Amino acid sequence: MSKKISIAIDAMGGDNSPDKTIEGVKIFLSHKKKNNDFILNLFGNEEIINSKLKKYKVNSNLIKVINSNKVVSDEEAPLTAVKNSKNTSMWDCIQHQLEGKSDISLSAGNTGVLLVISRMILKMMNEVSKPALAGLWPNKNGMNVVMDLGANIECNEQNLVDFAELGSALYKSLFPEDKPKVSLLNVGSEEIKGTEMLKKASQKLKDLSNDDNFIYNGYIEGNNIMSGDSNVIITDGFTGNIALKTAEGTAKFITKNLKTSLNILSLLFSFFSLKKFKDKLDPRKYNGAIFLGLNGPVVKSHGGIDAIGFYYSIDLCYKIVKGNLISQIKKNLKNINNV
Amino acid sequence: MSKKISIAIDAMGGDNSPDKTIEGVKIFLSHKKKNNDFILNLFGNEEIINSKLKKYKVNSNLIKVINSNKVVSDEEAPLTAVKNSKNTSMWDCIQHQLEGKSDISLSAGNTGVLLVISRMILKMMNEVSKPALAGLWPNKNGMNVVMDLGANIECNEQNLVDFAELGSALYKSLFPEDKPKVSLLNVGSEEIKGTEMLKKASQKLKDLSNDDNFIYNGYIEGNNIMSGDSNVIITDGFTGNIALKTAEGTAKFITKNLKTSLNILSLLFSFFSLKKFKDKLDPRKYNGAIFLGLNGPVVKSHGGIDAIGFYYSIDLCYKIVKGNLISQIKKNLKNINNV
Repeated sequence: MSKKISIAIDAMGGDNSPDKTIEGVKIFLSHKKKNNDFILNLFGNEEIINSKLKKYKVNSNLIKVINSNKVVSDEEAPLTAVKNSKNTSMWDCIQHQLEGKSDISLSAGNTGVLLVISRMILKMMNEVSKPALAGLWPNKNGMNVVMDLGANIECNEQNLVDFAELGSALYKSLFPEDKPKVSLLNVGSEEIKGTEMLKKASQKLKDLSNDDNFIYNGYIEGNNIMSGDSNVIITDGFTGNIALKTAEGTAKFITKNLKTSLNILSLLFSFFSLKKFKDKLDPRKYNGAIFLGLNGPVVKSHGGIDAIGFYYSIDLCYKIVKGNLISQIKKNLKNINNV
Repeated sequence: MSKKISIAIDAMGGDNSPDKTIEGVKIFLSHKKKNNDFILNLFGNEEIINSKLKKYKVNSNLIKVINSNKVVSDEEAPLTAVKNSKNTSMWDCIQHQLEGKSDISLSAGNTGVLLVISRMILKMMNEVSKPALAGLWPNKNGMNVVMDLGANIECNEQNLVDFAELGSALYKSLFPEDKPKVSLLNVGSEEIKGTEMLKKASQKLKDLSNDDNFIYNGYIEGNNIMSGDSNVIITDGFTGNIALKTAEGTAKFITKNLKTSLNILSLLFSFFSLKKFKDKLDPRKYNGAIFLGLNGPVVKSHGGIDAIGFYYSIDLCYKIVKGNLISQIKKNLKNINNV
């Protein structure tokens, strides 16, 4: 790639920003010492960002600070966002991307506002019926893409088919060596299970399944999301949001109980192996929901995540652009129209 | 209670039955040495059951063996079950209950068939729009009732309201000292979140909320199911099934990763504390889905569970009858009709 990967970063959004965003940038730079194939555009109050860059000793010609004096507040409602969030660091990121100066935008700020202004500024791709949020989820063999995670609480079969094409394009951009294997989340794996809408979506996916874009693996139940047999899990935004949050809650509940059960002695003896266990399942590694179906990808980092989690979402942006997500998506969407 | 608690047990259903069912009975009897307020009616091939009772050295006048020569097969489809499953051990349990000789039925056999024949024989309560499956789920302070777990993949607001009354009656029968706190599972906790159907159900539950039956706590997100703030979690059968199975899958994934991460030395040193951890979260303790809304409760044990898990579901049946579930339900349903 001769053109540099250009990432627009809202430096002001989320808890403890811009401290955590700048620290995240620092960690990213330290991991990419050998690369100069990217540029990070940091949006926010120039003075504050420069002082934080100084504080964290970040000094690189791969960074550009672009002044935006306003910040989207956490209380801002999506309905009034278009009126109130012009010239904020979040808005300016998306605008920068629209003008072709960035390939992707990243923010840890207000989710609802980010979805609304991204959609308004970047516009939906012609071939897509609804944009949706995709997330990463650990599985036995690596990682899943799961979508929709909550952008659309009610979906029809065509939406789910679009999500399958978008999600498998994302998977391919992140893991170019691997083949996307799509499953529909359902209450059973037999063909007779589920709603009429799911049965129609399943039939369409069967017709679209091919070696080039994705292989359709049929229905999957909640307990097999992490089995690794499929790596692109498709569902409506209501179910996806509840499945994701239930998994998060369960993981937290178990690790908390584990901690209180282990006594000091066993903790000492288990320290290194528990560290390995924690590292593998560290939720920060899966930080970043990807908004797909617009004329450009937008990544939402968790608002409460720390600098390491923010680093992972910068890295996610880098990988997505490097993996040519948008041309993957266009290729996949042609598939729908050709059947 | 002067009348004995009478439980109809399908001794033949599920993997490794009747070995595991008879062993489960043995464990139940050993926990209830001081009680004689119950009778366990074991349905199945008399000869086989008697030989297993001998094998496991179970000898008690609190047991009654009732001969049924047929068994519902795992492959039997719900649609043909009514024709094919007459005079099976499962059918005979429900029939015994209909005749008033048992208060509750328990089977680890074919779920679909159990739901269909229970509904056909026991019939739905007049005041209920749909029967549903309730389950137990650990939380920070004890246990939740979660329903529907999959009996109804599409629901309207009245169904959810009925589930709230049924679920809180179940909670009260199991934990008479505690107050049922109902929440609706949703993608956010704010009032504007969710489908129109959920908003209508939420309004109805607000109107029904009172100190006598249940307190309505509003919406709950997936990550807070186990927080303990609410203890009766209501959702449609599609979402409930996926949430439950996702939680199961996540728990399994984490504990498996924990095991492979710990080395021998740390395993040795952690043995007792890990045992305590495992005991607390042992899924066998939550074994048994309760079919509610019929003129009598029916409990479905997991088919693959072992004898200890089956013991927990016998104990669940005992508690449900002792806690006067059916009169609790009737009291709660009056609440709906009075508003």
